[in-house]
Amino acid sequence: MAYAIGMMSGTSLDGIDVALVDLSGCDENTTCELIHYKSYPYDSVTQQEILAASHIETSNVALICSLNFKLGKLYSEAVTQFLKEFNVQSPLEFIAIHGQTIHHLPNPTNGLTHSTLQIGDPAQLAFDHKTIVVSNFRPMDMIAGGNGAPLVPYTEYLLFRDSQKNRVLQNIGGIGNVTVLPKNCTEDEIFAFDTGPGNMMINAAMQYFFQKDYDDRGNVAKQGKIIPELLKNLQSHPYFDKLPPKATGRELFGEDVVNKICVHYHQFPNDVIHTLTELTAWSIADSYQKFIMPKLVIDEVIIGGGGAYNQFLMDRLSYNLPNITVKRQEDIGLSSDAKEAIAFAILGNQTIHSRPSNLMSATGAKIPVILGNITPNPWNFK
Amino acid sequence: MAYAIGMMSGTSLDGIDVALVDLSGCDENTTCELIHYKSYPYDSVTQQEILAASHIETSNVALICSLNFKLGKLYSEAVTQFLKEFNVQSPLEFIAIHGQTIHHLPNPTNGLTHSTLQIGDPAQLAFDHKTIVVSNFRPMDMIAGGNGAPLVPYTEYLLFRDSQKNRVLQNIGGIGNVTVLPKNCTEDEIFAFDTGPGNMMINAAMQYFFQKDYDDRGNVAKQGKIIPELLKNLQSHPYFDKLPPKATGRELFGEDVVNKICVHYHQFPNDVIHTLTELTAWSIADSYQKFIMPKLVIDEVIIGGGGAYNQFLMDRLSYNLPNITVKRQEDIGLSSDAKEAIAFAILGNQTIHSRPSNLMSATGAKIPVILGNITPNPWNFK
Repeated sequence: MAYAIGMMSGTSLDGIDVALVDLSGCDENTTCELIHYKSYPYDSVTQQEILAASHIETSNVALICSLNFKLGKLYSEAVTQFLKEFNVQSPLEFIAIHGQTIHHLPNPTNGLTHSTLQIGDPAQLAFDHKTIVVSNFRPMDMIAGGNGAPLVPYTEYLLFRDSQKNRVLQNIGGIGNVTVLPKNCTEDEIFAFDTGPGNMMINAAMQYFFQKDYDDRGNVAKQGKIIPELLKNLQSHPYFDKLPPKATGRELFGEDVVNKICVHYHQFPNDVIHTLTELTAWSIADSYQKFIMPKLVIDEVIIGGGGAYNQFLMDRLSYNLPNITVKRQEDIGLSSDAKEAIAFAILGNQTIHSRPSNLMSATGAKIPVILGNITPNPWNFK
Repeated sequence: MAYAIGMMSGTSLDGIDVALVDLSGCDENTTCELIHYKSYPYDSVTQQEILAASHIETSNVALICSLNFKLGKLYSEAVTQFLKEFNVQSPLEFIAIHGQTIHHLPNPTNGLTHSTLQIGDPAQLAFDHKTIVVSNFRPMDMIAGGNGAPLVPYTEYLLFRDSQKNRVLQNIGGIGNVTVLPKNCTEDEIFAFDTGPGNMMINAAMQYFFQKDYDDRGNVAKQGKIIPELLKNLQSHPYFDKLPPKATGRELFGEDVVNKICVHYHQFPNDVIHTLTELTAWSIADSYQKFIMPKLVIDEVIIGGGGAYNQFLMDRLSYNLPNITVKRQEDIGLSSDAKEAIAFAILGNQTIHSRPSNLMSATGAKIPVILGNITPNPWNFK
């Protein structure tokens, strides 16, 4: 038994997800029990700073330098609060963090290098909580020839594969990503890719029109209707036709794109939200039809991430996927919210055990490698 | 016996210094023999990218994201070239890298956080050379209450302390920094601080006026004369009166400041170079008179770093320090050039041995801590 904490802070900028898990073993012998989970929202200043740091036009080195340490501090404060709230007394074997992605260049142009950038320095967490921190998981996969994403599929393989059903796991965070687990699959048989926007476009438009972080239960979308020329235009984005493995981020589906849409259709806020929600549902279903269903009969789709709580999005997804069972993670006794934080605890566990954790079929890497950096417990002198 | 590589790439942007050392022991039992050393210059495009990434006005997140990986690649290529040139066959226990500082905010304003940012991701080195990489040494010292700099003094304490002489070690890289080693000193008795500009201002002016990287042997400065109002103005900078421990960087003495000077005095290039050289010599001597000599009789000053080869700067330093012996590291059988790269090998060795390596008296940290992040050898599965 080893208590460990996994932490995720995603592109949707909701905040810092903290999961305390009880882990044992590694590889296919991993067992992982969720003990406690809570998400700590970013304050609006921090959200604005992350957005500013993520965009070419508004970012600069002082902001990135400062925010890297500020996020490290916020991560540490979230863990302090978490341990207190749940009265956790047991020592932690390690903390594993995803960090905050502020840029991802899997297919760079203009002389730039294939790269990714997650910030949130691990030193403060290691110092305050007197523990090892595992961080910066994505670069090594990119160096091994992969896209650095998605990384969660490896952990889903460990936790979700079923002996009877072809399962498709769809995460709807800022970005949408899917993991396909054929029944009784081996590691080589899994595949995964980013389907396109998750909540990112919807949330950006909600922010633009209503200064709200998200469309609660899809109630705004429900009041609008499709803007056909906008939907058609967005559906023609070349990302949707690109063969997996593929990964995307704020560059293609972020505020820059959405703000232009909002300006153009400023008289029809509900219709914009409706259309972006439809696009998200369509892009998920369309990617299944193009890239999964030709190979496999899908028995079950399990939705995780914040998008699982957008009822209108879920309805549109079911409509776009006739004859397929669409469930939420909660429907099978799991937690949509905690999934990614748990995943990083499992990835950290692999690194601590000197074991690889990139799924070549998901990231496109040429070989399996041990991911991440280990920050030693700075107090633990030998 | 353990072969290890230490790598430094400093604010002077000369390039990538690589030192192969034979290390044994740790703490005060460290022995370190330099086997080979070579510096690999940055090409001018990379230099320009680093400068652009370092300045608030010209930096952006895509450049920083890309350059972080590009530098990691250049580091790895430098090691490949180095191992080939010197026909090194022995396996490496580890590689330790400083990384390239693109920002340092020890005393931030405008709501920014106390922070520092070194880039050059370690993944490529670990992957290509199938070894452990230790990196990112500065953040943990800052979290422990220090300035994150200078870090070299700890290694100088291990290598340079003398039973008979009060030694002052002056490094003149981009920035000037000094370490004071009283005879037979203990760790607590050392102190160190950044004296101010090293070659940074001279080099920036050489670039502005002559498109050259540095003033070879000080020959340009020698042809000029002092501009009294400029010297007086620069000497009045509050940094020079600030009590140690203190650290500085490109923010105070970089291109932004120098370019304004060059524009103003554009008719007098040699005089500008002369005055900036005098400022550098004066700032070193002045800091000794203010902060060292009241406590200690200096027996010997040993100069390291590129500035040791600027004969005019050395002459002005001797003139400003009457009755004190000023030597180069070479005069006592060591290498000015290799010093910092060796230092990072020693710091990496401390981290690998779970030992602290920040000198509280140098950085201002509240406690000693284990510094840095360890990137596991990604191929070394257990």
